[in-house]
Amino acid sequence: MNQIEALERLINQFTKLPAVGKKTAQRYAYFLLTMNEADVQEFATSILEAKQKVHYCKICANFTDKEICDICAKPNKDKIICVVKEPKDVLAMEKVKDFSGSFHVLHGVINPLENKGPNDINLRSLLSRVKDEQIAEVIVATNPDVEGEATAIYIANLLKPLGVKVTRLAQGVSMGSELEYTDAVTLSRAINSRREM
Amino acid sequence: MNQIEALERLINQFTKLPAVGKKTAQRYAYFLLTMNEADVQEFATSILEAKQKVHYCKICANFTDKEICDICAKPNKDKIICVVKEPKDVLAMEKVKDFSGSFHVLHGVINPLENKGPNDINLRSLLSRVKDEQIAEVIVATNPDVEGEATAIYIANLLKPLGVKVTRLAQGVSMGSELEYTDAVTLSRAINSRREM
Repeated sequence: MNQIEALERLINQFTKLPAVGKKTAQRYAYFLLTMNEADVQEFATSILEAKQKVHYCKICANFTDKEICDICAKPNKDKIICVVKEPKDVLAMEKVKDFSGSFHVLHGVINPLENKGPNDINLRSLLSRVKDEQIAEVIVATNPDVEGEATAIYIANLLKPLGVKVTRLAQGVSMGSELEYTDAVTLSRAINSRREM
Repeated sequence: MNQIEALERLINQFTKLPAVGKKTAQRYAYFLLTMNEADVQEFATSILEAKQKVHYCKICANFTDKEICDICAKPNKDKIICVVKEPKDVLAMEKVKDFSGSFHVLHGVINPLENKGPNDINLRSLLSRVKDEQIAEVIVATNPDVEGEATAIYIANLLKPLGVKVTRLAQGVSMGSELEYTDAVTLSRAINSRREM
């Protein structure tokens, strides 16, 4: 095809986004070219502004545009910290009405295959937070996969000597799912954690 | 949730892209924030540069960074113009080895429901091109949907008085498809255009 350099560069940039392949990137780039000048300017500006203004909260390492994020700024009445892998996990947990504690974002999990050890994730400050904020319970809400489980176990071993209660999200069948299509590991955990009615 | 204005603005910008909902936009925005400063700068710059450098070819209205695009700059030996709805259709047609003519991009189709008449698409210059370039055949390759068909008929009526041959892409069953799942209109067109073996 006839190469238009600036267009190819833009397409390449879009392929960097998660789950965006060449075809989708092309679609985005072509669409941007049909937008008017002012809108494209606004698009580019909002990218730069977000990167410039948004940084990690000094306490929980979630995204914020202040020094301390809104959640950490509120008093943590229940003295509970929910530990998550990524900022987007905070979004998910925030929707849960039964939880009103604060968060701690690891920005990754322990993953030997990717050479990621405990020192490569935001763990150290969790220890001092538990002490300083007199935390009663730490809920480890890393994903229920191999790396998430390993990280959870590591965190539990690390925190237990401090006398804090460490819990993990319950595992079982999810709402609206069908037993027929549920994997054996999930079913076995659901059986083992069955509760009386 | 705790609103971070700059982040919300960025998410809103991403939702403008085709087929990008709130959730995907969020994913893109969060990903951008994890990229390093220089990469984000490059991303924003490539958006602005593409918009600034890429414009419509003076002849065929396809995207180009020159005054006249590479395809129009080549001699059109076969004297054939392929008329398409959008620049991305040119990408698709360019892959066809049996075609080596030039293109004409309408940037839309006639669509009364959206108040789009013949004057709202890039049609007028097609007439002068057919005359000036002594075109022998115009292939109308608008999409095989209601608006595309209507536009094709309009173009055919417009061009025939000039004595140029106007053709339409053949319609029929597509390669690798299954008859069982092919719609009746397509099958009926495939039957009517059947060819001897």
